[in-house]
Amino acid sequence: MEISDILTSLPVKEPKKLSIISFSGDFDKLVATFTLATGAAAIGYEVHIFFTFWGLDAIKKKQGRAFVGTGFLPKLFGFFMGGLRSAPVSRLNFLGLSPKIFRYLMRKKNVATLEELVEAAKVLEVNMYACEMAMHILGLQKSDFIHEVKDVLGVATFLEISEGGRTLFI
Amino acid sequence: MEISDILTSLPVKEPKKLSIISFSGDFDKLVATFTLATGAAAIGYEVHIFFTFWGLDAIKKKQGRAFVGTGFLPKLFGFFMGGLRSAPVSRLNFLGLSPKIFRYLMRKKNVATLEELVEAAKVLEVNMYACEMAMHILGLQKSDFIHEVKDVLGVATFLEISEGGRTLFI
Amino acid sequence: MEISDILTSLPVKEPKKLSIISFSGDFDKLVATFTLATGAAAIGYEVHIFFTFWGLDAIKKKQGRAFVGTGFLPKLFGFFMGGLRSAPVSRLNFLGLSPKIFRYLMRKKNVATLEELVEAAKVLEVNMYACEMAMHILGLQKSDFIHEVKDVLGVATFLEISEGGRTLFI
Repeated sequence: MEISDILTSLPVKEPKKLSIISFSGDFDKLVATFTLATGAAAIGYEVHIFFTFWGLDAIKKKQGRAFVGTGFLPKLFGFFMGGLRSAPVSRLNFLGLSPKIFRYLMRKKNVATLEELVEAAKVLEVNMYACEMAMHILGLQKSDFIHEVKDVLGVATFLEISEGGRTLFI
Repeated sequence: MEISDILTSLPVKEPKKLSIISFSGDFDKLVATFTLATGAAAIGYEVHIFFTFWGLDAIKKKQGRAFVGTGFLPKLFGFFMGGLRSAPVSRLNFLGLSPKIFRYLMRKKNVATLEELVEAAKVLEVNMYACEMAMHILGLQKSDFIHEVKDVLGVATFLEISEGGRTLFI
Repeated sequence: MEISDILTSLPVKEPKKLSIISFSGDFDKLVATFTLATGAAAIGYEVHIFFTFWGLDAIKKKQGRAFVGTGFLPKLFGFFMGGLRSAPVSRLNFLGLSPKIFRYLMRKKNVATLEELVEAAKVLEVNMYACEMAMHILGLQKSDFIHEVKDVLGVATFLEISEGGRTLFI
């Protein structure tokens, strides 16, 4: 075996990359997703977020409880999912009181709020994608999302884009 | 330091690999697990799924609410876990109505159902393993699982098998 | 391009590394976190756990329902989080009965209990860190944690430390 053969069989050093599959629409997990994404982007990582299922809620244009989606059942889910502003926390939700307390504490302690984190992600050029299959099930169109959502992707394409770095499922 | 020393210290290019620790037995998370696994396998990834805790429910032979497991308490858990067909969704479960709606929407929209995804995973030679420790706690035997489950593994062996690729905890 | 240029652009083989972002305070997920961490450390992996949000509960000095934290609301959360000994399971919690059953089964089956796993992690020199931002929101100090917690870190520092291995979000 020649050295040249060995060299071409070796991997090249890739840019640091962080990819997140944002599956949960929970308030606290969305805070974690955007804190990781913006923190990584700020130190030069290439960052990709793939929103799917309940996570799609975070990138909807119409926030609040709105009947987004095509068909009766998707609309119903759209209503109950309700967007960023009404996202529950994953534990001790106390009928929606907890997210309010968290928001209050985050503001009081000068920690970036969820909406500010989403804004920061846009500025730091975090790549955001929507999952084709989940959109299809929930009756959502690309036009239902904020325009920063770069593309609608299937799982295979996302795996290719995120290859070579770390991927988290949140 | 010789070039040959440097070369042997370098990593070799490995096949693309995706590993999933399937911990949750939730319907929507199982759909995500099998969609990722089959999507990756379809484009040539080597795929490994390590089923543990509630995730073991997805690979049980007897589906539906059955008293699987040895001992009273494991049997009780087995009954409440209830298998693929009665897996709840992680949010807005509405006492079991939501999985039914999801199934209905998936069928209507021609998206592969969970059972079809599991079948596809078998055909695409996705490697499936059961977690030894969780089986021990829940009183489960290898014979309780579908025969496609390749092996019963401990954490250390799974880490070695999945080394060099990405691993997701779902 | 010279061979020397190619060589310096190549990655060096790194030690096996496993990093876990411990977000959830659920009993079963903490068992998974510490089983993976100790299993990996036992076979020579460098292991890092970054505790954040509900996960911070696992490393508090005062266990049980205690009013830990500064300020009324953080104290309230501290009380409801309640530490390792009262961590709920993520499914079928049955008002706290399930963790008790799990503990009973783990003891009966001679599987290491959660407290034993945490002790093992200390002995195996698993690196434990607390998330700065979450501590700030929840009004927690470094002195509230067990002394094995090595450092208080931000997301960016944790990403650098865990670079080059696998990272799981649990």
